[in-house]
Amino acid sequence: MKPSRRSEVPGFEVMSILAEIEQHRSAGRDIISLTAGEPGSGAPPAVNAAAAQVHAANTVLNYSPAFGIAPLREALADHYRSWYGAEIPVERIAVTTGSSGAFILSFLAAFDPGDRVALARPGYPAYRNILSSLGVEVVDLDCGPEVRFQPTPEQLEAEVATNGPLHGLMVASPANPTGTMVDRDQLTGLAQWCRLHGVQLISDEIYHGITFALPGVSATEVDDDAVVISSFSKYWGMPGWRLGWMVLPEHLVDPVSRLAGNVALCPPHGSQIAAVQAFTAESMSFAGSQLRDYAAARALVLDALPQLGWGNAAPADGAFYVYAHIGEHLKHYADSTAYAKALLHQAAVAVVPGTDFDPVDGSEWVRLSLAPGSAVVAEGLRRIERLRA
Amino acid sequence: MKPSRRSEVPGFEVMSILAEIEQHRSAGRDIISLTAGEPGSGAPPAVNAAAAQVHAANTVLNYSPAFGIAPLREALADHYRSWYGAEIPVERIAVTTGSSGAFILSFLAAFDPGDRVALARPGYPAYRNILSSLGVEVVDLDCGPEVRFQPTPEQLEAEVATNGPLHGLMVASPANPTGTMVDRDQLTGLAQWCRLHGVQLISDEIYHGITFALPGVSATEVDDDAVVISSFSKYWGMPGWRLGWMVLPEHLVDPVSRLAGNVALCPPHGSQIAAVQAFTAESMSFAGSQLRDYAAARALVLDALPQLGWGNAAPADGAFYVYAHIGEHLKHYADSTAYAKALLHQAAVAVVPGTDFDPVDGSEWVRLSLAPGSAVVAEGLRRIERLRA
Repeated sequence: MKPSRRSEVPGFEVMSILAEIEQHRSAGRDIISLTAGEPGSGAPPAVNAAAAQVHAANTVLNYSPAFGIAPLREALADHYRSWYGAEIPVERIAVTTGSSGAFILSFLAAFDPGDRVALARPGYPAYRNILSSLGVEVVDLDCGPEVRFQPTPEQLEAEVATNGPLHGLMVASPANPTGTMVDRDQLTGLAQWCRLHGVQLISDEIYHGITFALPGVSATEVDDDAVVISSFSKYWGMPGWRLGWMVLPEHLVDPVSRLAGNVALCPPHGSQIAAVQAFTAESMSFAGSQLRDYAAARALVLDALPQLGWGNAAPADGAFYVYAHIGEHLKHYADSTAYAKALLHQAAVAVVPGTDFDPVDGSEWVRLSLAPGSAVVAEGLRRIERLRA
Repeated sequence: MKPSRRSEVPGFEVMSILAEIEQHRSAGRDIISLTAGEPGSGAPPAVNAAAAQVHAANTVLNYSPAFGIAPLREALADHYRSWYGAEIPVERIAVTTGSSGAFILSFLAAFDPGDRVALARPGYPAYRNILSSLGVEVVDLDCGPEVRFQPTPEQLEAEVATNGPLHGLMVASPANPTGTMVDRDQLTGLAQWCRLHGVQLISDEIYHGITFALPGVSATEVDDDAVVISSFSKYWGMPGWRLGWMVLPEHLVDPVSRLAGNVALCPPHGSQIAAVQAFTAESMSFAGSQLRDYAAARALVLDALPQLGWGNAAPADGAFYVYAHIGEHLKHYADSTAYAKALLHQAAVAVVPGTDFDPVDGSEWVRLSLAPGSAVVAEGLRRIERLRA
């Protein structure tokens, strides 16, 4: 008995590192983990209170509709009105089991085996791994510092000229691992290029709200044909609740609805009822206060880069990561994996080697997560500096 | 812009009917729904109490490990010891986002595009729809009353002789929609046939615990190479919690682990913490008392078949459905879809037409769910009888 060929995707290394950290902690070691995109704050208190009430009342939690409960879809439509001035018909909003649930459904609905989908390298590894497990050809766009780690129409043009048509483009702004963003003109340019070439644009906006200069521009503002994917995991601090959503273009509403009813049935029902409370003034203010702490943590890391012996970092416009070249450490360590291992074992601080996000150049970069908050980040930085000393 | 060809799967009709029922109810109509496999009881009180406590304490719910939290995996290993006398290493137990999450992961890990997977017709429609969206060829085994609606080694032998090798076999016992079961000898025979032919056996045991004569036999008892899929949705009344699990054979542990870390990240964390309480004596006794009510509802329906004007029903050994031929109603209605529509509109009671489960013969059958409990079922039966009168 053998596994399928398509299961031969790399694991998501962050998940393995999290498991290793758990082992160290179980053995009594005090590890500072700057690895996962897991906000230290948890959910807004009003969301937890609503969930507590649901369960204290022994509410029967049946399947919800495949696209989620009406009050949450309506709250999301209000949210698009308030944050982006966008009018989204509720019918185009699908609640999903985290953004993960949105990726699998939108990829299945939009792409057939053999289709070619472009994405920035470095980028979130699950994009490429899910796509390739579904038989989609992943087209890497080499997005280094010279393009601020974001794809450009020129790169797409060159790719099509050299290797033939594309079927999809994944854009993430703010991006993981770099935090860089595309502005309104850039997003409009990419959307126009996609429309002209019949390419399905998928915009991952999971880090919207966590931005340090300009707010994120939503693809819903510039293109009705784009798929927008987002989640309660990051801004609202709810990764374990497994709750995300999509704004779908008209042509994908029915296909995704049929697929969702078979593949997922529905997102977690209790999480949905509670998440309606994520949009109250109190909850938004709670999320906003986390943002101020991420900004403080970000400043600490960017200021400390020379003391860490690290090189340049990607411009962290948003999200809660700093993606940095490991600079002088390449003299002592074979690559960022070896360096990260040394940090974990000798300094008891965990960061993620860049290879998870960039199989080509990532061996010289690491990603440090600000999500645990400025106090934890400050202690992590002290430990990293101490190892160097 | 066009959807993918592989998104052209049928919707899961039960989900559409649920949405239609919601519309009727919103318009003030009192509908008795005997459609979904949604226990009327809800979760055991101790599970709800644990969830309420998690949220009342504002517990930070981060990603759990991809295969779930250790205490739940250990509780599941204990459960296999206590129910089946089976020793399952915790490493082979993966907690999933409902059985739905287990289907997509196991299908991706075990089957490549073009592989041929056999399953009983009638059967749970999502099997076929997920498999075909993943490029797997679904091989129908025509399982009527003469084989008690379950596949046999003889059928598999004939299929292979006629159409070539198979790569997988899905078995469900108790089955949806029929409720029929395979006994230990039958399951052993199917497992041996699979082993001999290099065919991956996947055993859906989601209705275990809900059995009216003999308890369900788990494939873990007869074959270490089988994938076993189950869930908290049915016996424990927790469909909206989106929590299931798999027992994996050794050769699929790593592939599923890599896929899970990319495709799903993890199952809902709060549901996992709460579900540890599903195995206490009190919770098991709560679930057992629901079983007695399903048995009462089942007896009501089987006794009422002549008064309903329905024909034969599949032997409902377990699960909470009665799958029955609509008999004399075929004189007045074109098919079971038209009959179900009349029941909904004229008698305010909803059942599911068999076409969802059997695209060939299902037009003469309906599935009635006992899950809402005997009181609701009794009222539903009165309404169905009244329409006939």
